[in-house]
Amino acid sequence: MRERLADARVAHLATAGADARPHLVAITFAVDGDTLYFAVDAKPKRTTELQRLKNIAANPAVAVLVDHYEEDWSKLWWVRVDGNARIVTDHAEMQRALDVLADRHPQYRDARPAGPVVAISIDRMSGWSSA
Amino acid sequence: MRERLADARVAHLATAGADARPHLVAITFAVDGDTLYFAVDAKPKRTTELQRLKNIAANPAVAVLVDHYEEDWSKLWWVRVDGNARIVTDHAEMQRALDVLADRHPQYRDARPAGPVVAISIDRMSGWSSA
Repeated sequence: MRERLADARVAHLATAGADARPHLVAITFAVDGDTLYFAVDAKPKRTTELQRLKNIAANPAVAVLVDHYEEDWSKLWWVRVDGNARIVTDHAEMQRALDVLADRHPQYRDARPAGPVVAISIDRMSGWSSA
Repeated sequence: MRERLADARVAHLATAGADARPHLVAITFAVDGDTLYFAVDAKPKRTTELQRLKNIAANPAVAVLVDHYEEDWSKLWWVRVDGNARIVTDHAEMQRALDVLADRHPQYRDARPAGPVVAISIDRMSGWSSA
């Protein structure tokens, strides 16, 4: 599960606000120990502006899924992380997270994201494979 | 957005229970008018057994995302449906939904899913494309 998570190029992030309405986005991410990081590419005017950030501020519980789809359904798999998200405010942690993200995604090397950066604690990992 | 949704082979579904903890799964689905259907492949012992079904029973608000990823980030796109989910109890609607699903997914033709089938009202559609 750890390997599949670390190797995935894209994941999906589910958040829910205080009203329990779920929100869903695709994210690129990087794992550093027991923390998963993703960055907001284009800095919003306020950190609470994007729904994912607004939801995290109201309710830190999140789920992240990496999965594989192909038409041969005997080859499907997924790995899900349940954890808590926080917006990174510490400058050193933010720089380190951006380094880890740039290391994982060449696309970030030329255009380092402005942030904010979100850290998700990998509290629980579950997985399934049809094989 | 309609075309991209209808053409997608896989989507992601976010639900959240009464406790507002988000849950996230990959689904295969089919669209019939303003309703999106997916089926549970292996019938759980009770319809409330799977977390997605338990969440829907407690809180019908869901989000469904179809998206495209590739390493060229200038070609990314997504379409998100916000709606309300319900477990289909009407026999005729369930048979029709299974027909639509089998029409969309050859994999379901030989192995028609036992259900339950979930219907999601397409209340709001939003989308983004980097191109």
